[in-house]
Amino acid sequence: LNSHDLFRDTVYGPVEWRKHKSWRRHFPEGFVCLQVLAWYWPPVLFVIFVGVLVGLYHTYLQPLGAPDITRDDYTQPFTLTSFALALLLVFRTNSSYDRWWEARRMWGQLLNITRNLVRQTYAWGDPADGPMKERIARWTIAIVYALKMHLRRSKRAPNELLDVLLPHEIEWLEKQQHRPNAATQVLTEAVKALRVSDYQRVMIDSEITNFHLNLAACERLFSQPIPVAYTRHTSRFLLTWTSFLPFALYSRFQWLTPFVSAIITFLLFGVENIGVQIEQPFEVLPLPHFCAAIKKHILDMVACHAEAKALALQS
Amino acid sequence: LNSHDLFRDTVYGPVEWRKHKSWRRHFPEGFVCLQVLAWYWPPVLFVIFVGVLVGLYHTYLQPLGAPDITRDDYTQPFTLTSFALALLLVFRTNSSYDRWWEARRMWGQLLNITRNLVRQTYAWGDPADGPMKERIARWTIAIVYALKMHLRRSKRAPNELLDVLLPHEIEWLEKQQHRPNAATQVLTEAVKALRVSDYQRVMIDSEITNFHLNLAACERLFSQPIPVAYTRHTSRFLLTWTSFLPFALYSRFQWLTPFVSAIITFLLFGVENIGVQIEQPFEVLPLPHFCAAIKKHILDMVACHAEAKALALQS
Amino acid sequence: LNSHDLFRDTVYGPVEWRKHKSWRRHFPEGFVCLQVLAWYWPPVLFVIFVGVLVGLYHTYLQPLGAPDITRDDYTQPFTLTSFALALLLVFRTNSSYDRWWEARRMWGQLLNITRNLVRQTYAWGDPADGPMKERIARWTIAIVYALKMHLRRSKRAPNELLDVLLPHEIEWLEKQQHRPNAATQVLTEAVKALRVSDYQRVMIDSEITNFHLNLAACERLFSQPIPVAYTRHTSRFLLTWTSFLPFALYSRFQWLTPFVSAIITFLLFGVENIGVQIEQPFEVLPLPHFCAAIKKHILDMVACHAEAKALALQS
Amino acid sequence: LNSHDLFRDTVYGPVEWRKHKSWRRHFPEGFVCLQVLAWYWPPVLFVIFVGVLVGLYHTYLQPLGAPDITRDDYTQPFTLTSFALALLLVFRTNSSYDRWWEARRMWGQLLNITRNLVRQTYAWGDPADGPMKERIARWTIAIVYALKMHLRRSKRAPNELLDVLLPHEIEWLEKQQHRPNAATQVLTEAVKALRVSDYQRVMIDSEITNFHLNLAACERLFSQPIPVAYTRHTSRFLLTWTSFLPFALYSRFQWLTPFVSAIITFLLFGVENIGVQIEQPFEVLPLPHFCAAIKKHILDMVACHAEAKALALQS
Amino acid sequence: LNSHDLFRDTVYGPVEWRKHKSWRRHFPEGFVCLQVLAWYWPPVLFVIFVGVLVGLYHTYLQPLGAPDITRDDYTQPFTLTSFALALLLVFRTNSSYDRWWEARRMWGQLLNITRNLVRQTYAWGDPADGPMKERIARWTIAIVYALKMHLRRSKRAPNELLDVLLPHEIEWLEKQQHRPNAATQVLTEAVKALRVSDYQRVMIDSEITNFHLNLAACERLFSQPIPVAYTRHTSRFLLTWTSFLPFALYSRFQWLTPFVSAIITFLLFGVENIGVQIEQPFEVLPLPHFCAAIKKHILDMVACHAEAKALALQS
Repeated sequence: LNSHDLFRDTVYGPVEWRKHKSWRRHFPEGFVCLQVLAWYWPPVLFVIFVGVLVGLYHTYLQPLGAPDITRDDYTQPFTLTSFALALLLVFRTNSSYDRWWEARRMWGQLLNITRNLVRQTYAWGDPADGPMKERIARWTIAIVYALKMHLRRSKRAPNELLDVLLPHEIEWLEKQQHRPNAATQVLTEAVKALRVSDYQRVMIDSEITNFHLNLAACERLFSQPIPVAYTRHTSRFLLTWTSFLPFALYSRFQWLTPFVSAIITFLLFGVENIGVQIEQPFEVLPLPHFCAAIKKHILDMVACHAEAKALALQS
Repeated sequence: LNSHDLFRDTVYGPVEWRKHKSWRRHFPEGFVCLQVLAWYWPPVLFVIFVGVLVGLYHTYLQPLGAPDITRDDYTQPFTLTSFALALLLVFRTNSSYDRWWEARRMWGQLLNITRNLVRQTYAWGDPADGPMKERIARWTIAIVYALKMHLRRSKRAPNELLDVLLPHEIEWLEKQQHRPNAATQVLTEAVKALRVSDYQRVMIDSEITNFHLNLAACERLFSQPIPVAYTRHTSRFLLTWTSFLPFALYSRFQWLTPFVSAIITFLLFGVENIGVQIEQPFEVLPLPHFCAAIKKHILDMVACHAEAKALALQS
Repeated sequence: LNSHDLFRDTVYGPVEWRKHKSWRRHFPEGFVCLQVLAWYWPPVLFVIFVGVLVGLYHTYLQPLGAPDITRDDYTQPFTLTSFALALLLVFRTNSSYDRWWEARRMWGQLLNITRNLVRQTYAWGDPADGPMKERIARWTIAIVYALKMHLRRSKRAPNELLDVLLPHEIEWLEKQQHRPNAATQVLTEAVKALRVSDYQRVMIDSEITNFHLNLAACERLFSQPIPVAYTRHTSRFLLTWTSFLPFALYSRFQWLTPFVSAIITFLLFGVENIGVQIEQPFEVLPLPHFCAAIKKHILDMVACHAEAKALALQS
Repeated sequence: LNSHDLFRDTVYGPVEWRKHKSWRRHFPEGFVCLQVLAWYWPPVLFVIFVGVLVGLYHTYLQPLGAPDITRDDYTQPFTLTSFALALLLVFRTNSSYDRWWEARRMWGQLLNITRNLVRQTYAWGDPADGPMKERIARWTIAIVYALKMHLRRSKRAPNELLDVLLPHEIEWLEKQQHRPNAATQVLTEAVKALRVSDYQRVMIDSEITNFHLNLAACERLFSQPIPVAYTRHTSRFLLTWTSFLPFALYSRFQWLTPFVSAIITFLLFGVENIGVQIEQPFEVLPLPHFCAAIKKHILDMVACHAEAKALALQS
Repeated sequence: LNSHDLFRDTVYGPVEWRKHKSWRRHFPEGFVCLQVLAWYWPPVLFVIFVGVLVGLYHTYLQPLGAPDITRDDYTQPFTLTSFALALLLVFRTNSSYDRWWEARRMWGQLLNITRNLVRQTYAWGDPADGPMKERIARWTIAIVYALKMHLRRSKRAPNELLDVLLPHEIEWLEKQQHRPNAATQVLTEAVKALRVSDYQRVMIDSEITNFHLNLAACERLFSQPIPVAYTRHTSRFLLTWTSFLPFALYSRFQWLTPFVSAIITFLLFGVENIGVQIEQPFEVLPLPHFCAAIKKHILDMVACHAEAKALALQS
């Protein structure tokens, strides 16, 4: 039971969308519930514990003359601050969502960057450039896998690269410090060796420039969290608010207090936790799937190029 | 009665806008009401059911000494969390709206991409390039239909393509894995064969690059939902909140409770559901209409090109 | 008294801004008040009507034993949903505002598109190209008016075009299906006939490409409203909320209820209505003024070009 | 005591930031308080007046049998609408902030536009082009001042231009209708006369194109306020809300009512007023400072160009 | 104990993310707590002081007949304004966050700007250009350090530049007024001296243009705070609200009032303070780390270029 899987993104197709849009999405799912439980028990248990303590105090100590600590009008401070808390939680989650979405957009753009690079290489390159074109297609796939290795901090090239790069190329790539940088340098030199006009070469190269733009954006999202002071203050606000909640609820809910506090705690911590889990999106997004899709599309394009050309030039 | 039609977008013209902006928009529309009913009955019925149970318990079991489960001051937890719930609902709907709007912008940009491609081809191409120009116009229409086929996962070319592509071209397109990719490869080769200066060719080609950008964005919106943990937590929050609502309302509303709870449930689930239904916009947007409009505009431009040229060069 | 004028935008200058920023902006303006009244009477009257009915029921039927329908604690459901309602209203208005602002930006960009087109044509064009330069300036003005005709669905060229285009040009333009498309085709051919280097021609043409980008954006804003399910649900939420309001207010306000409900209804419907009225901005924005400004600036630039050139080349 | 200075922006350096970030920012500043007083007295005084009237009515007329107009439970309508009011105020302020920030970005971009224009002119221009390079540097400074004159509607060239342009150039500029347009035409011709390759000329010219983009954005922000219906409705909402506030507060605060109402009025009107004052940012932003900074940077770049070149080419 | 360190950003790697995403993030950290205390004591102490005064007044003066200043229903004004306050706080924090994020993005983009500049220089430059390529790599590193010096207002070149620039180059750079401007002029001349085609030179130069875009954005963020009227009004609102809070809480919390007020004050001032501390992000972001990373990457790329070229051209 790996509770982190709760936040893994999967790739959607028509079937998933149909399920997603139907009313059945509101049904509780057995396995997911267990994962949720595995995630949220620490704060929930803590608040239940506070609630029980408050109850015990009220039941056993107060009749002995201990000062009253739970009163109906203790709810006022919670009402006054619930807006600020809700706004903080939702805005923070939204900032994380923006980061997650930016990472997803960057990986989505790798699709058009790689496709355009191969499309233009095959259309504009001289027929005599066959092997060089193929090499460009191979290294185009390689820069995407190199980016994945870089973001997941893996040192070994994945198996999917074995039929793309030659053994000595893989070996060289693995021993580089900054693999995406190194791979784009190879690609740049290969594009330079292509027999196309200077202007066309620069256009093809501009997709490598775009790749670097995406690469830098991914590195930024990886190395820079949302200001930790912000994250910590939200956590502090939430923890203070939920810890004191049983004091305000007890006079109304008596021994239901732990239960009610636990539900509120779970709902609010759930919002905060989503924000934290998707803040660094590269563990959450299905990068291997994206890489495989790009590899497949590039190979398809290479395979159908001759037919496409024949179709365009038929007379 | 297909309740999904409730979320289908239609194309607006001056008449629709006049109606849209008048006060009559607030009148309930008979048929739409039925569709709404068809959508929202499950959660509404569930909450009514809970409300009736609470009422029965209060009426028959409580006089027999069963513990009190509905009290006036049970509303506090709902007040404390209603901000967070409302914010979650509206932010989620907004994120979906942004996705929907991005998809719409992408399809709107297909208009200028295709127009510029054809405009430049016809203006810059050599007079001797007539057949090639026409072929480019035809394949420009084809890439848009190919995109629609791709997003709707349809395997057969629509009838509207029959008078655009030749039979063997349609056949070839249908048997491709990734139809938009294949179609742009044909288009690229056709542009390459045009007798224009290298620099102009690259400019025309840059619109194909733009098409790929839109294509990748559409694929991203299709394959990537908003993090499901977010969607599920919102659903969980909403369901918990509305399920317990009758307990808090009963002491005030007695047997009106099921009715009042049902209205609140309908209003809040309505917000959430809009967010989910427009999250994947390609079933909701009128893609066939967009394709037909692009086809019509391209054919118009081809038809009036000679006159426009004459007008520009008259002396 | 055309109540729609309430939402017409006017062009601001220093005088208007001074008035806008002074405290006097809070003073009620007599004529505007009438327009407001003309707009908002239907829902306000409806809610007053409900309020009066509730009052009559309470005064005449309840003493006869009719069940109590107005109680002080009926306000709870309104408090619980007022956040969601307020957020919906304001977010919807904001989405409309974003559309309005995009439309305004698009028309603002026509200024730099047309100026750059004419500026580069006159600076780079061969001195022998005089008549062609003038023709480009004329058609640059024409594409803007053609866009206005297209968005306002007017079939006749406005009088302001009479001294810009020649009669047969106007006639040709009027009989086109898609006038902005046709006009840019003429302009493209005219730019093609200019004696400039290939590279410069492509740069001038890129402003026509930018025009098409704006054109497509305007067409998108015109033909695509915010999802109607969203608009309708907001309307439904608001109408339900205000219709039931008198029931909750009566026990506190008695015969002031219709008055208080009417004010709240007016304030909330006012927010919603702004959102709907600026959703399709082309009836609201002063397009004729924008066109006239562009025409004037282009003619000014043509007129002062020779002096500017002399100033730049003086020795 | 010019109360408008309250909203003037100043340029920050390390010293200002240190003060800004310290706790002392919360101390009331004597002079600013006076300015604030000078701004907000009209609505505050009005609400105090209403509060006193309500008090007098309650003290003198109600004991005589006048109907009760202040009751404790009159606060409900204010609670129900306070979210909508707060959202309206803050969203409106945010829209103004976005406009202000866009204007600031536009003026910030003038820095890189002018620097790149001069940098490329000096690096790429032929050594024999000395006087023309200098003329380009001079007119680059002039277009920025022309933009300031245009946005502030001043007819006379500022003194800072006297040592940049020659007297007859200033005279010519002053008599133009649209000064930034005219100045860029001179600059365009000067760039055209530069002995650089066609391609480089077009790159330098593209910075003039960027300047026009900024110019059009500034004109848009100047001539287009946020929809006045929006502004007026916010004002109406706020005024209605605060005017009736004393009726709800009196039963709780008695003769403290005017004081409490005044504070709330001041706080809420303060939010609205910030939004209105920064809505048209060109009176608020320190344009003269921006112009002077650009002038200084351009002159510095011209001065150190020879040294930079020597450093780059040393062997 | 430098309390400002509370807001310093650090660079995250896999280890930090693992810690960041685990539940342990909610545990209070000893040292951070001290820093927090060092920051927030002034307003917290002030509110405690007010709370104690209110308590003393109520305990000693009120029994002597002093007028009652604390009543249960004094909470109404706080409830009515808590939305506006919370929205102001969170929106302001969000505006600051956007500035912080823009600054971070700008520094992230320096990565791709510098990499592309060096990548293209090494790939396209003539083999005979060896020393000039190296000089370009050196000055590419220098412009980044020059930007850091400029934003931190340091007059001395950092030690990290000693092995990048030659002594006389450092000396020259240090005595410039605007160091990034001067450094890019050197770089421009070096790129001009490269033996590449005109078109390629312009592409390389365009990365210097991009650098200027980032530079201007950083200068804007440094010299322009969020409108101070906005900041001051938020501070005023918050201070007024928290100062009067004890009057409303006393009747409920008696001698717990100072404690409860202190917690609320701390939570709300915490939100405001985050917004102010990250408003000018260049003291908060780890600029030295960014510069070192860029230097390392550039040197790596230079080092592995020959191998990458061999790999691309192998046959």
